[in-house]
Amino acid sequence: MTAPSGFTSVDQWALGTIHRALGRPPIRLRCASGAEVSPAATPPLGLIEFSDRAALWRVVFDPEVGFGEGYAQGRILVQGDLVSMLEAVSLVMPEPKQQNRWVRMVLRWMNLVQANTLSGARKNIHRHYDLSNDFYSLWLDSQLVYSGAYFESQSATLEEAQSAKMDYICRKLQLRPGERVVECGCGWGAMALHMAGHYGVSVRAFNISRQQLLLARQKAKETGLSRRVEFIEDDYRNISGQADVFVSLGMLEHVGKEHYPEMGRVIERTLGKSGRGLLQFVGRNHSQPLSPWIRKRIFPRAYVPTAGEVLAFLEPGDFSVFDVENLRPHYARTLEQWLERFENSGEQVSKRFGPEFVRIWRLYLAQAIAGYRAGALQLFQVLFAGARCQQTPWTRAHLYESGRQTGTGSAPVHRMP
Amino acid sequence: MTAPSGFTSVDQWALGTIHRALGRPPIRLRCASGAEVSPAATPPLGLIEFSDRAALWRVVFDPEVGFGEGYAQGRILVQGDLVSMLEAVSLVMPEPKQQNRWVRMVLRWMNLVQANTLSGARKNIHRHYDLSNDFYSLWLDSQLVYSGAYFESQSATLEEAQSAKMDYICRKLQLRPGERVVECGCGWGAMALHMAGHYGVSVRAFNISRQQLLLARQKAKETGLSRRVEFIEDDYRNISGQADVFVSLGMLEHVGKEHYPEMGRVIERTLGKSGRGLLQFVGRNHSQPLSPWIRKRIFPRAYVPTAGEVLAFLEPGDFSVFDVENLRPHYARTLEQWLERFENSGEQVSKRFGPEFVRIWRLYLAQAIAGYRAGALQLFQVLFAGARCQQTPWTRAHLYESGRQTGTGSAPVHRMP
Repeated sequence: MTAPSGFTSVDQWALGTIHRALGRPPIRLRCASGAEVSPAATPPLGLIEFSDRAALWRVVFDPEVGFGEGYAQGRILVQGDLVSMLEAVSLVMPEPKQQNRWVRMVLRWMNLVQANTLSGARKNIHRHYDLSNDFYSLWLDSQLVYSGAYFESQSATLEEAQSAKMDYICRKLQLRPGERVVECGCGWGAMALHMAGHYGVSVRAFNISRQQLLLARQKAKETGLSRRVEFIEDDYRNISGQADVFVSLGMLEHVGKEHYPEMGRVIERTLGKSGRGLLQFVGRNHSQPLSPWIRKRIFPRAYVPTAGEVLAFLEPGDFSVFDVENLRPHYARTLEQWLERFENSGEQVSKRFGPEFVRIWRLYLAQAIAGYRAGALQLFQVLFAGARCQQTPWTRAHLYESGRQTGTGSAPVHRMP
Repeated sequence: MTAPSGFTSVDQWALGTIHRALGRPPIRLRCASGAEVSPAATPPLGLIEFSDRAALWRVVFDPEVGFGEGYAQGRILVQGDLVSMLEAVSLVMPEPKQQNRWVRMVLRWMNLVQANTLSGARKNIHRHYDLSNDFYSLWLDSQLVYSGAYFESQSATLEEAQSAKMDYICRKLQLRPGERVVECGCGWGAMALHMAGHYGVSVRAFNISRQQLLLARQKAKETGLSRRVEFIEDDYRNISGQADVFVSLGMLEHVGKEHYPEMGRVIERTLGKSGRGLLQFVGRNHSQPLSPWIRKRIFPRAYVPTAGEVLAFLEPGDFSVFDVENLRPHYARTLEQWLERFENSGEQVSKRFGPEFVRIWRLYLAQAIAGYRAGALQLFQVLFAGARCQQTPWTRAHLYESGRQTGTGSAPVHRMP
């Protein structure tokens, strides 16, 4: 411990205020003046150190953005396991009854400039997903799947778990050769290629990230699937034509609550009364705005819905919900592996994007792991079908059969050779 | 066909109006005067005959109650398979944009006199469930389970499927010996006794039907489970004390939408942050009032919710939804078996309650089968857990293991010897 030279009781008060606002986690707080708050009971998980008074006061004033920015700039230092410390905070931190006036103002301003209009959505998506395909190749799996995986066994690798996730969804949807699938937000194309290659369906896959589409089209050519998979650069609101199946993974988070009725109408006009669909998305237990720091630095204008909010926008289309599964622990595991790979490529990332970028992304990935571990974030898969859909299996046992080459249930699933 | 004596073009007009309002199903309509409407294309599934003009006009004026009452009184006769005909109507009948003024007035009046206050709920439940235990014994399974069963194989008997359903729910909940369970609405006690007898938990089971409780307590004595199962005559709103598990089958339909926030608070104060629960209930794809005839004759003040409406009342308690399953085809199968057994006991029921009662119950059961077959009704099981619950399995594979004596997942399920 440094000697309390330059100690001021005001710093001490600020640290105490922050510690209380965090719900008194087992974490020590210290600032450069030497002021310090130590938790009484449990041995502390680590230390958060404020290198200057401005960084400290910004956290008092605007906890989430203040901490995120201070950490990114290297003015707030963390000693100890970042994920465990964030998890501890997530477990004890009371939800603010109301954001303070400054935070509310900033949120309103962000809502305005980040609005998901057709052009706004393109800008928002571009900022995250067009960073560079090389960057994502450093820490995602070899197929570049940027959504929660499914670890059938706890010892599965990330590559196995991403393949298993895609296959699990195909089995839930009971895809049959020749069916028409619309994929809404297709990333680098892994799911579209998996469905076409293994289940013999034809896919129209929509995306507004140009970088992702370039690579997706290249992969389709390389695997000889260009005839069955069409990658289309367009907004979900412009999806036209009918399909048997609608699928969307990790895209709903970018739609924004105010556009859910539009999303519902797109699904309804695509599937009619007899189609079926699956949505995978990050969810919440109850409605609350996304962290303003995450919106500022990572996902502009994103909103993480409750399962009920998603079911609600499926109601006007008279869709029957058949299966909702929460795969929360699987997303924690996925993110742990992403973070590990990311840290291993830290130097490369730092060379290209600078050390501040590395700290921003580390904090984003670590916060997400903490959220899933603490039960604050959920990963939902929602399977639904038109009221006249005949593709509903008798039980879900076919999803879990060992040695399954073909599914079971009322509609067997066939694999392409 | 009878000769068209006394034929009037007004009867003809009325029949045409009814046929159009039903969405032009492949069903012939005829009235005593000889007026008739025959569907053009498909061979008709059957014939609906109005024996007098008053019965005919009541249907024009108030389709659902008019048909139900006319059928009950024997003034509307049905030739052909009642279930198939109702299913055909359910498939094509357009949902009325707005009920007519008379129906709205009747619904408002029913809302008032059937309100689910503490005493009102007792009256409403008494009217249905206290009819007599002997009556229900005639057509339910041997354990008297009055909710949708789970047919693991399509050839399972009703008794097997009801046992399978209860066990499936215990596995979903991963019950462990010694845990405390609250059951909300326990019928004749089968589920409470199954949980205590096979999983070693202790159960407090609530119900406001006295007839059901009398039999449930007797069964607890006979099976030596009185020490572990307490049957309590009280309203769900009076449930107090903590539990590890909250379970409720086929009871939510009686709560009424306006009392959902109360239901949510009861579950929250029972489970806290670490408990878990399962609700099984009849559901809808989208919000709509229950048939006024069903409310008048079968279930006073019942309301059938959407899955989203149920998830919504779990949100304030910060519960994580882990699994929503729609078992619609299983309830159709369950009801088919109930109806078959009911018809086999028709004479006995008629002797005790009269032929009108038999027709009312036949129509109720047949309508329900038709609703599930046509996709208008759903059967949901919602599994949820407090945000701090540690009892969440890694996958759902343990639910479908063959030869399962013990479950798998993070928390193995133990059976009592």
